[in-house]
Amino acid sequence: MITLSSDFGSPYPGAMKGVLLGRTDAQLVDVSHDLPRGDVRAGAFWLREVLPWFPPAVHLAVVDPGVGTDRRAIAVRAGDHALVGPDNGLLMPVARALANGGFVTYQITVEDPPSSTFHGRDVFAPAAGEIHRAGLAAMDDLELLDPGVDPVDLQLPDPTLDADRARGEVLVVDGFGNVVTNLPGELLAGLETVEVNGEPVPVGDTFASVPAGERLATVGSHGNVELDVNDGRGDDVFGLAPGDEVELAWE
Amino acid sequence: MITLSSDFGSPYPGAMKGVLLGRTDAQLVDVSHDLPRGDVRAGAFWLREVLPWFPPAVHLAVVDPGVGTDRRAIAVRAGDHALVGPDNGLLMPVARALANGGFVTYQITVEDPPSSTFHGRDVFAPAAGEIHRAGLAAMDDLELLDPGVDPVDLQLPDPTLDADRARGEVLVVDGFGNVVTNLPGELLAGLETVEVNGEPVPVGDTFASVPAGERLATVGSHGNVELDVNDGRGDDVFGLAPGDEVELAWE
Amino acid sequence: MITLSSDFGSPYPGAMKGVLLGRTDAQLVDVSHDLPRGDVRAGAFWLREVLPWFPPAVHLAVVDPGVGTDRRAIAVRAGDHALVGPDNGLLMPVARALANGGFVTYQITVEDPPSSTFHGRDVFAPAAGEIHRAGLAAMDDLELLDPGVDPVDLQLPDPTLDADRARGEVLVVDGFGNVVTNLPGELLAGLETVEVNGEPVPVGDTFASVPAGERLATVGSHGNVELDVNDGRGDDVFGLAPGDEVELAWE
Repeated sequence: MITLSSDFGSPYPGAMKGVLLGRTDAQLVDVSHDLPRGDVRAGAFWLREVLPWFPPAVHLAVVDPGVGTDRRAIAVRAGDHALVGPDNGLLMPVARALANGGFVTYQITVEDPPSSTFHGRDVFAPAAGEIHRAGLAAMDDLELLDPGVDPVDLQLPDPTLDADRARGEVLVVDGFGNVVTNLPGELLAGLETVEVNGEPVPVGDTFASVPAGERLATVGSHGNVELDVNDGRGDDVFGLAPGDEVELAWE
Repeated sequence: MITLSSDFGSPYPGAMKGVLLGRTDAQLVDVSHDLPRGDVRAGAFWLREVLPWFPPAVHLAVVDPGVGTDRRAIAVRAGDHALVGPDNGLLMPVARALANGGFVTYQITVEDPPSSTFHGRDVFAPAAGEIHRAGLAAMDDLELLDPGVDPVDLQLPDPTLDADRARGEVLVVDGFGNVVTNLPGELLAGLETVEVNGEPVPVGDTFASVPAGERLATVGSHGNVELDVNDGRGDDVFGLAPGDEVELAWE
Repeated sequence: MITLSSDFGSPYPGAMKGVLLGRTDAQLVDVSHDLPRGDVRAGAFWLREVLPWFPPAVHLAVVDPGVGTDRRAIAVRAGDHALVGPDNGLLMPVARALANGGFVTYQITVEDPPSSTFHGRDVFAPAAGEIHRAGLAAMDDLELLDPGVDPVDLQLPDPTLDADRARGEVLVVDGFGNVVTNLPGELLAGLETVEVNGEPVPVGDTFASVPAGERLATVGSHGNVELDVNDGRGDDVFGLAPGDEVELAWE
């Protein structure tokens, strides 16, 4: 099984699929081709949240604003999973989630790829196809993998937690407009109301705990504090975008 | 084979796929993840129109504005097909279409799902995966299925038919802007023109039966009367949205 | 393996998949369902660029503004590949790319299809499913294929090349806003700057060769000259749309 994640929209993922299926007869599984465009941190967050739900697989993932520069291409063996993508930090949070830090990184060496703007097709897909065909145990022997590279790291930001307040930030806004923060959901335990950037907001278990159009703070499916609007867009109503600061306060 | 239908957009369907493939090695088939958001009736219409074209399969379908409330989760055995989703009526029209009314409904009992906002991943996907793994004949024996539940019904609205006129409503607008009504296509048989809400509109077999930019009434691929514009958007030109009344008159 | 390409968006491709899987147990691979709507030339370009990356497959492809008129439905055997779609030129450039001109065309004869507006489901999918089931070698024997048809041709436009200038046009704009022309990428070899419609533009190997927000001319992944903006939309900044003329000049 090979999963595909990218910010490519349409129709570029089709060419990656052709290259993969020319090298291996894996089942291909689209995770998303609408990851936030060019946002490596958002991509890293979504990969970390989604890919660990899969059984052992090869995961091809590309959010790559530096395509064609001297940023390297890497493959990661993380437990029973392999990850393939650009060396810009995108794969690091999910690699840690899959392997508790004990992962191995390889540089992908594709000489003279056919293009300098579509490494998804010309570098990452050939590597992912070869890894799937050979099997993870053979990664050390693959000619296009060079072991022992020190990858570019990316840490999702940690919040600051105090006794009666916590300060974090918006990681991503999902397609529903839900505002996903880096604040741990446990902060909301037992609260009926929480102050969000100075304004009181009801705490609810689920969207329908408040009337349509009303705001709520809830624990999202990733375990983080999420700022939502029932039957509406949290990002619009809270006026928050990725990277914005979020301070919660309670009594 | 497991089909997936939802209003989730991206990237949430990826997590459902991971959960499914962790339980069974089914071929996964995306039907749509862009069903009209939160519109249970529109979702019910599209499922009824699309899923009966499939050979026997397990169908996971989620349009679920009440996620996390006490609305139940259900599985339906309808002929050689199984349906899995929220108990909000979404699955009822397609269940009737697949089984002529002779379907069996089960309540899905997943204790303490990991989230209260993403039952697609935490309740419906595990159930669909188990049903596929065990086979439809074993549904009575699955621990997470409780037979004999009386599901919430949803009836797509019936039109009122008279000798020289018919009154119905808009069910959905498709991505092309075509306005799909609940009026039976047979009403247009033999007509060259039909009055739509008081204005004469040519009746055509296909879009190109009128010049680009012009309106027509036609029989859509679902067999209903559809109000379209050749090379344009019917919803804009007719000024119609889901739920709006449509009266046809003829001589 | 059957690939699917269309301009259908959602949820119509789901019905095509059901019909295909009712006739054959092929792996289905979505190439794109967001091809530029109703733009046969753009669809023909993308199919030619993407499908040749696949191993032998049956390719179902539909961009079909003339659905339901007397335009024919065709299947093409091109090397180890089969193509199925409308006879409006859509399949011709990719057929030539796959078979160097030596392809064979069949008319698809489906009597009284269930609809006149959704031949993707009612004509093309049944034919693609039958061809996959029977195998390419059996195409001559399939009842729904009538050999020897002379298909409608479509030629992507050729540029005019002079010693110090070249005149071409915009073929497509991709989802990133990159402006893809019909001018061969070799024209940029060795240049640091090129005049685009009278204005000097830096030539770069990749997006990041210019600062964010700046314009560049580059060789796209299809080998043609592409007019891009690093971290921005080339179509907006260059003011170019499909069909617009592009003149390059150099010294």
